[in-house]
Amino acid sequence: MIRGVVIGEVWATRKNPALQGRKLLLVSQLSVHMDGTRHFTGRVIVAMDNLDADVGQEVVVAFGSGARNAIEPGSRSVLVDAAVVQVIDGSST
Amino acid sequence: MIRGVVIGEVWATRKNPALQGRKLLLVSQLSVHMDGTRHFTGRVIVAMDNLDADVGQEVVVAFGSGARNAIEPGSRSVLVDAAVVQVIDGSST
Amino acid sequence: MIRGVVIGEVWATRKNPALQGRKLLLVSQLSVHMDGTRHFTGRVIVAMDNLDADVGQEVVVAFGSGARNAIEPGSRSVLVDAAVVQVIDGSST
Amino acid sequence: MIRGVVIGEVWATRKNPALQGRKLLLVSQLSVHMDGTRHFTGRVIVAMDNLDADVGQEVVVAFGSGARNAIEPGSRSVLVDAAVVQVIDGSST
Amino acid sequence: MIRGVVIGEVWATRKNPALQGRKLLLVSQLSVHMDGTRHFTGRVIVAMDNLDADVGQEVVVAFGSGARNAIEPGSRSVLVDAAVVQVIDGSST
Repeated sequence: MIRGVVIGEVWATRKNPALQGRKLLLVSQLSVHMDGTRHFTGRVIVAMDNLDADVGQEVVVAFGSGARNAIEPGSRSVLVDAAVVQVIDGSST
Repeated sequence: MIRGVVIGEVWATRKNPALQGRKLLLVSQLSVHMDGTRHFTGRVIVAMDNLDADVGQEVVVAFGSGARNAIEPGSRSVLVDAAVVQVIDGSST
Repeated sequence: MIRGVVIGEVWATRKNPALQGRKLLLVSQLSVHMDGTRHFTGRVIVAMDNLDADVGQEVVVAFGSGARNAIEPGSRSVLVDAAVVQVIDGSST
Repeated sequence: MIRGVVIGEVWATRKNPALQGRKLLLVSQLSVHMDGTRHFTGRVIVAMDNLDADVGQEVVVAFGSGARNAIEPGSRSVLVDAAVVQVIDGSST
Repeated sequence: MIRGVVIGEVWATRKNPALQGRKLLLVSQLSVHMDGTRHFTGRVIVAMDNLDADVGQEVVVAFGSGARNAIEPGSRSVLVDAAVVQVIDGSST
């Protein structure tokens, strides 16, 4: 998984039917400098969200089957490869 | 998933039979600077498209089993690892 | 797998129910210069831990199904894509 | 998938038995600058080839299950994670 | 797959039981400059080895299910995501 900050949302009318009713967030990945300060890596992920994360919040994003298990546990046919799995309250770094 | 812009298409006569009749687009991945402006990351993806996306349009691309579920839901044997899953109408960033 | 150093932990109350009771560590990936000295790549991974790794320790992190097999061997439905699989005692580089 | 140029081949006598009789090519990944010119990203992939691609040719490489479906459609047990899936005739970028 | 050079080994007493008796090598990924000279990308992979590769040797490393098929063909439950699949004798680049 990676840690990032929600920076926005994308929407569309022309899309795969499997995405109907799904919320897609833009998440900017975070890294940590040697001195402990955070910075953005420049990598932006489009992640499905079912935890109602808001812009500005720090989240953990899971990928691949981890993301599919977050949206529909045990399902192999859900159309997703990245999902918000927790809204971070705190961290020791 | 990632956000990108369709920049072209590739075609071939010598190819795996499973790609017969499939449309493959070149998608240039987008990132966002701290000030909110967009820029290209330099990563170019070859993505299968069944939504008739055009050059210049912003799209969301899914990977791995997410892409296979976009092209043939529930199938594990379709030859694809990246697919256009929506044509973006708008975004808050 | 990759080699990294545990730099902290993240916690949350709003999270996917499948993460209940799971410990998530922040691991900073290590690389090696030509002269044999180590440095951080800047990539920070959020990895599930069931080996009680401590901050400052070097660990090996596995990804994807490798991580799921570390947490629940043979299971395809566990929500994880990265896991600590060993706490390094030593290395020849 | 990604677009790249075949730059060579690797061979070995000491190898996993599952690679017996398989051809492995070195493919250098291509990207596109804003002005439309191509350049190499520096990433070199070792890809299995069953399309007889030659050095200097542009190809599309698929990864993961996409690559396994290119070599043995529907099989989950073939030892490969990257495969040449088409030899490019042309592209609009 | 990728091409790399074995630069060392890691060992541990505190580890996932599934890694008992497994050898884990550190492999530094190789790339090729435009003029044909090789250089290291800086990415270091921890790869399982069952081919007795030595420090200094060039190897091919497979990932994901490709790696699992190298260690236990057809198995989905082996704890590995990267494995040495051949010791390179030569290459045309």
